[in-house]
Amino acid sequence: MRYLMVQIPNTPASSSPAPRSAPTSADVARLAGVSRATVSYVLNNTSAVRISEPTRRRVHDAAEELGYVPHAAARSLRAGQSRLVLMPSPAFPAGPLYGRFVAELQWALGHLGYTVVQCGTVGLHGDEAVRAWAELRPVAVLVAGADLAPQAVTVLKRAGARAVVTLGPEAVEGAHALLMDHTAVGRRAGRHLYDTGRRRVGVVVPVETGLDAFARPRLRGVRDALDGTDATVTELPLAYEEEAAARLAARWPELGLDGLFAYNDEYAMLLMRALQDRGVRVPRDTAVIGADDLMLGRLLRPRLSTVHLELPSGRRLAELVDRAVRAPGTPAERHTVLGTAIVRREST
Amino acid sequence: MRYLMVQIPNTPASSSPAPRSAPTSADVARLAGVSRATVSYVLNNTSAVRISEPTRRRVHDAAEELGYVPHAAARSLRAGQSRLVLMPSPAFPAGPLYGRFVAELQWALGHLGYTVVQCGTVGLHGDEAVRAWAELRPVAVLVAGADLAPQAVTVLKRAGARAVVTLGPEAVEGAHALLMDHTAVGRRAGRHLYDTGRRRVGVVVPVETGLDAFARPRLRGVRDALDGTDATVTELPLAYEEEAAARLAARWPELGLDGLFAYNDEYAMLLMRALQDRGVRVPRDTAVIGADDLMLGRLLRPRLSTVHLELPSGRRLAELVDRAVRAPGTPAERHTVLGTAIVRREST
Repeated sequence: MRYLMVQIPNTPASSSPAPRSAPTSADVARLAGVSRATVSYVLNNTSAVRISEPTRRRVHDAAEELGYVPHAAARSLRAGQSRLVLMPSPAFPAGPLYGRFVAELQWALGHLGYTVVQCGTVGLHGDEAVRAWAELRPVAVLVAGADLAPQAVTVLKRAGARAVVTLGPEAVEGAHALLMDHTAVGRRAGRHLYDTGRRRVGVVVPVETGLDAFARPRLRGVRDALDGTDATVTELPLAYEEEAAARLAARWPELGLDGLFAYNDEYAMLLMRALQDRGVRVPRDTAVIGADDLMLGRLLRPRLSTVHLELPSGRRLAELVDRAVRAPGTPAERHTVLGTAIVRREST
Repeated sequence: MRYLMVQIPNTPASSSPAPRSAPTSADVARLAGVSRATVSYVLNNTSAVRISEPTRRRVHDAAEELGYVPHAAARSLRAGQSRLVLMPSPAFPAGPLYGRFVAELQWALGHLGYTVVQCGTVGLHGDEAVRAWAELRPVAVLVAGADLAPQAVTVLKRAGARAVVTLGPEAVEGAHALLMDHTAVGRRAGRHLYDTGRRRVGVVVPVETGLDAFARPRLRGVRDALDGTDATVTELPLAYEEEAAARLAARWPELGLDGLFAYNDEYAMLLMRALQDRGVRVPRDTAVIGADDLMLGRLLRPRLSTVHLELPSGRRLAELVDRAVRAPGTPAERHTVLGTAIVRREST
């Protein structure tokens, strides 16, 4: 067995101290020699009340000394509004592109005074998940993917969410929508393969759960682009496994495809390797294009052509959330936010 | 410009309804014809009080009809304890291995009745981040990485956290520790290169922020393994960029290295490509080994040897958290939880 779990005896230094009761704002007020109201004004940064700089500093020092932390939940109950923005983790495996987007968004929302928390949806389904989100009383909810029902928006709003924003292929009633049109990705890829002389085009459709919301529109986009031309489109279901790729590559002669849109760069790497292992020359026999413009595409030989995706800027999305929170009654906004461009390298 | 942000005119159907005030437990009690206490007993699943099945069903139906969701914050204020487990997002770029680990952990904690939220640390530093975490009043905090100060543990405990658990190279006073000893990864790689006849070993150390906590112990592990032998160790700082890899590869003849531990599989792919582009034969001139055992290593030619990492099981970690929450006074536990094994392929 390679996996080890050994308990190491504790040294006295590592034993935790007996828990003390949490300091309250009354303790802070006593130590600073001010009223509890003053503590609240200072620590909540209320601008309505003028408090001298020395008093302000005394309160901060006392809070620091006692290790006092205001209770976000209590604060939001008092104020009737939290500053919590909830982002349920998407059901699809998030790649590096999405990771960078979330980091930028968190930074921008933090800058506007919000706290962003991501909440796992693993093990929760449909209604149950939405009720778990609602229990946290977020002021705004950002949902990536295509899974939100209109009733879910109602539940979240009744629980106090002033804005629900979806990022996905379609708008949901009552929610602001950032529309990511993945047919555009397929159209770009299909047109590029056609323009470079390919007429028998295969399109990889991953079989992994959660990717359908992207894979279907991408396939549809290729069909759109080649509709009415002399080119054909063949759908190629594929699991992200070496054996599955080898099986598909073994069928290549009978499929007779001269162009391949491989869903994204990672699936392109997988299938291109299997094709090369079987002696298929890329791009001579079959041209291959991926999507996402990841680093690994530049490290392949031939270097991988790809569809570069431009996600919405985190700063602009943060501004939309803030706008919606400030004026929750305004009609739902809809923005189209997915830019695409061909990066042609050696594989097409 | 490739990036598009166009506002689409709203149809009447997409405008959000005027916000209604959130239904309360009193509304549920009225509709169900029961007391507020009964609503609370039923919806909080209290087993201390016997309530008939028809009453229970009436309360659930009324809650459903009104779209009533209990307020987690209010509930935790009443009970003095939340079920929230906070996992600050790590400061290092999390790879697929870590992603799978977090998903499994969330599932296991969900199963035990906890809600897991991830909280970004982007844009917050040190004390500020810890105070933001404390404001959410989690019952437990799981911190990956090496950045937690002992004072931070005190702040979190004063704010009501019954357990703080770190996953990282070193234990922090007052917190339970899952010790991930990354020197073991370097020792494995170093010994493997030595055993296969390599004597001039290079070790990649990424220059990217946040990776030092892993890269330094891995380098130290290689040194440990080769200490007292006739082999030498050369530290190779490297940025995750093609140009940086090409510059390092250009210095290869003068470096004269016959073995390379490339930090992980992704850096191995980057540098192996640059070496091959300059005519260095792998493994004949230089043997290359990565770490993490990612799919991409199997897709390289030659196939990449790697150090396989075995992370702690999410289920066992969830049990540790639950145990600590139930008995917060017990001494901090320490477990060593990183298993390693060589996967030899063609590159060594």
